[in-house]
Amino acid sequence: MITVDRNKPIPLYHQVRESLRDRIEADEWAVGERIPAEKELAIQYGVSQITIKQALQHLAREGLVNRMQGKGTFVSRPLTRNIPELVGFSAGFAQLGVEIETQVISKEVIKPGQGTVRRLQLQPGELVIELQRLRLKQGTPICLQTSYLVHDLCRPLLNYDLGRESLFDLLSKVCNLELVKAEETLNAVAVDDYEGKVLQIPEGSPAFLARRITFHKTGQPVEYVKSILRGDQCKFTAKLSMSTPNSKMQLQGQSLDIKSKS
Amino acid sequence: MITVDRNKPIPLYHQVRESLRDRIEADEWAVGERIPAEKELAIQYGVSQITIKQALQHLAREGLVNRMQGKGTFVSRPLTRNIPELVGFSAGFAQLGVEIETQVISKEVIKPGQGTVRRLQLQPGELVIELQRLRLKQGTPICLQTSYLVHDLCRPLLNYDLGRESLFDLLSKVCNLELVKAEETLNAVAVDDYEGKVLQIPEGSPAFLARRITFHKTGQPVEYVKSILRGDQCKFTAKLSMSTPNSKMQLQGQSLDIKSKS
Repeated sequence: MITVDRNKPIPLYHQVRESLRDRIEADEWAVGERIPAEKELAIQYGVSQITIKQALQHLAREGLVNRMQGKGTFVSRPLTRNIPELVGFSAGFAQLGVEIETQVISKEVIKPGQGTVRRLQLQPGELVIELQRLRLKQGTPICLQTSYLVHDLCRPLLNYDLGRESLFDLLSKVCNLELVKAEETLNAVAVDDYEGKVLQIPEGSPAFLARRITFHKTGQPVEYVKSILRGDQCKFTAKLSMSTPNSKMQLQGQSLDIKSKS
Repeated sequence: MITVDRNKPIPLYHQVRESLRDRIEADEWAVGERIPAEKELAIQYGVSQITIKQALQHLAREGLVNRMQGKGTFVSRPLTRNIPELVGFSAGFAQLGVEIETQVISKEVIKPGQGTVRRLQLQPGELVIELQRLRLKQGTPICLQTSYLVHDLCRPLLNYDLGRESLFDLLSKVCNLELVKAEETLNAVAVDDYEGKVLQIPEGSPAFLARRITFHKTGQPVEYVKSILRGDQCKFTAKLSMSTPNSKMQLQGQSLDIKSKS
């Protein structure tokens, strides 16, 4: 029997959840493998099946397991992206042999909102190309991306099928823009009804809101992109190292690709 | 009137939400300031008050606004932490003048689970100190942390009040451990009932699950810590730069502190 501690101020289902996550991540079961039935787990932990069910529901929401009605609970694994990396979304995954499909939801030239004006350092009246795309991996939606591109710099993009061509490649090859740096912010959010429908997850499901401004070598911002990444499909990793005794940190240079564990 | 586009395949409440987020982040209203009433916003956008309400509910869940019954909707801002940084949680915030209180929820010596054994590269039978702490900022819980510390290396910690002393400081000063690097993973998750109660947010609210393994200069892992950070209270930022033409990235060395915008 695996111990849970009834004297702790931490509820049993939470202890079981943490223990099961721990066991999954220790590869006690392979990805795709079925973990023991609820009844069996209840015996292992010496708790009720209700407690087990609660723990499994949470792990399923996290994307660590996949519960299939009448079939059992199977181990799954999210995609991993390292921070930092500055490659296009599909290019990053392509490096790993993960093929990303793209569906263009909307593409138009618009007058940008104030936040976008500021982020892209636009002049009054300057226009942007607003591009919304859904990114899928083997038919599973993983990311909803809305890009705002400076119209004056990126106008040639309008002639291309952005469901087929890499935006990052086009910016370089067709618009002659050399992208050199970016600033990225990550929030944890709950998807709204629209995002949920598009990403095929229930409203309220956890997701990353990743926002990035990408800069041209002149220092001018070129693109501002908001991505909603499914929490059950994606995670981020970083390697940190202490460079000086006064707690300053540097990122190790080698961890720059996108990894797929699934 | 601010335009929403009724011809787009993107619902109005979602367009309004994105526009309001944009305006808040462009500092149209200061932190703490009240934004226009729902009725007024409905006129501005030319949509129903129900649409405005939906948009505001989502922004509130994200932590960008605070809706106070009968008083209106006020702008708030999450704490920002840069990736990467390797300082203790309170030390990082102290650098900014943000004081972090700590409540110890539990502290005991346990037999670790398999995932912890593997992450900390433990020998069979080795024990860990399991420490669960709640971190608060001005009375608001922002983070629930569970640390697993190698017992043989960190035993002196058991003599200290970990609600008062910095774990990072004690590891260095009392345990003589020079921490040099770490590996961190970020997931977007929904809090369970227990985490929600402790963090004072509803079950299912979005949060970061940050997991870090911190290494001693000998390469030996010392601590494995799981943190649940409230999605409405925390965000992460990173600066990326392209170091070579083949899309390799490096992090800029200077962005290493924790920023507070609120």
